[in-house]
Amino acid sequence: MNKKAVILLSGGLDSTTCLAFAKEQGFDLFALTVNYGQRHAFELGSAKKVAQIFGVEKQSVVDIDLRQFRGSALTDEVEVPKDRVESEMTDIPVTYVPARNTIFLSLALAWAESLKAYDIFIGVNALDYSGYPDCRPEYIASFEQTANLATKAGVSGEEFKIHTPLIEMTKAEIIEKGTKLGVDYGLTSSCYDPQGNGDPCGHCDACILRLKGFKEASISDPLNYPN
Amino acid sequence: MNKKAVILLSGGLDSTTCLAFAKEQGFDLFALTVNYGQRHAFELGSAKKVAQIFGVEKQSVVDIDLRQFRGSALTDEVEVPKDRVESEMTDIPVTYVPARNTIFLSLALAWAESLKAYDIFIGVNALDYSGYPDCRPEYIASFEQTANLATKAGVSGEEFKIHTPLIEMTKAEIIEKGTKLGVDYGLTSSCYDPQGNGDPCGHCDACILRLKGFKEASISDPLNYPN
Repeated sequence: MNKKAVILLSGGLDSTTCLAFAKEQGFDLFALTVNYGQRHAFELGSAKKVAQIFGVEKQSVVDIDLRQFRGSALTDEVEVPKDRVESEMTDIPVTYVPARNTIFLSLALAWAESLKAYDIFIGVNALDYSGYPDCRPEYIASFEQTANLATKAGVSGEEFKIHTPLIEMTKAEIIEKGTKLGVDYGLTSSCYDPQGNGDPCGHCDACILRLKGFKEASISDPLNYPN
Repeated sequence: MNKKAVILLSGGLDSTTCLAFAKEQGFDLFALTVNYGQRHAFELGSAKKVAQIFGVEKQSVVDIDLRQFRGSALTDEVEVPKDRVESEMTDIPVTYVPARNTIFLSLALAWAESLKAYDIFIGVNALDYSGYPDCRPEYIASFEQTANLATKAGVSGEEFKIHTPLIEMTKAEIIEKGTKLGVDYGLTSSCYDPQGNGDPCGHCDACILRLKGFKEASISDPLNYPN
């Protein structure tokens, strides 16, 4: 029997590649998807397809409405910014959801503890999107310490490890590596503001960074963008 | 205008006293109650009454089903232990919910950040119930550090503080202090396994510690216990 890992899986490009990393390392895969009231709920369907294709042992979908903690374009009526150049993305974006990764990692920790899984994977990336404070290595290190103090694991001598295989990679490197690992990026969803049929808008920050990554990797993005 | 504080309020004796501390310190009160599928859901009604009596600015109730992360008598079909003496309660109890306080504090952090509230209160107690790893001061200190790295607050120079006014108090001291602050403990609910009408069982660990606390404080518990 292999070691178990809990992987946070949104169905986006980064988390899907992160799942591929965990699979490559030989873990039995437990995928955790959080339905937090995001307006790009289309990605939940992507997460289910990805989980299936990767043959995860189990996918858990947790419903939690974070819209009540207002302040982000991903969960309320603030408009998603469009057609920004990358230099405009350096501030903390309006798409920031307060404490999102802390909530997600806490949920992953809860599930991991009851599974006796001590490896948690999260596809955060510090390079391409420096605006999110909860994507920085020092944040991850601090959460890992908190996790080990929070749980029976910490008491009994086991140690949780938070794996962030993408944290220092560019989007292009992520796409190259994922492609080598066999990821079908046509199943993934990155757009903050997808069209009715789920096709990406091509103009939000996530689409712009994704398209730039594919371009730099000289790989074509299998998704359908508007002309 | 006063400073705002987010207070985790379950409707139990400890969190209600914690709310009274925050009120005494002059904060505007924002009460966060988590409905996590606990089988003593009666305490949710207690939390609503308590929030009303204390005149909170707002109470948020977050629904999140933690039953899928099995392993605790509070959320699944494991039996709540009865009639244990205190020396038997030193191990981590079966009523432990994996990573519960980390999830609760993460949710409080999300709400606090969007409110621009930098003070979070949680009624954890390290003395009376040493079995929960996420009630220890070193855990709280680590979460506070993580919170400040996780958020825009940390980036902009504001600092979150996690207040744990009860952490070193005995149950009797909590009851004495709360009584001085005007808490009506008849509104609170502590039992892990209440009867159909919400009355406490009198035999679970929570009831035993509560009754002992009232006895040591020489105050009578206004709740109705079975004969």
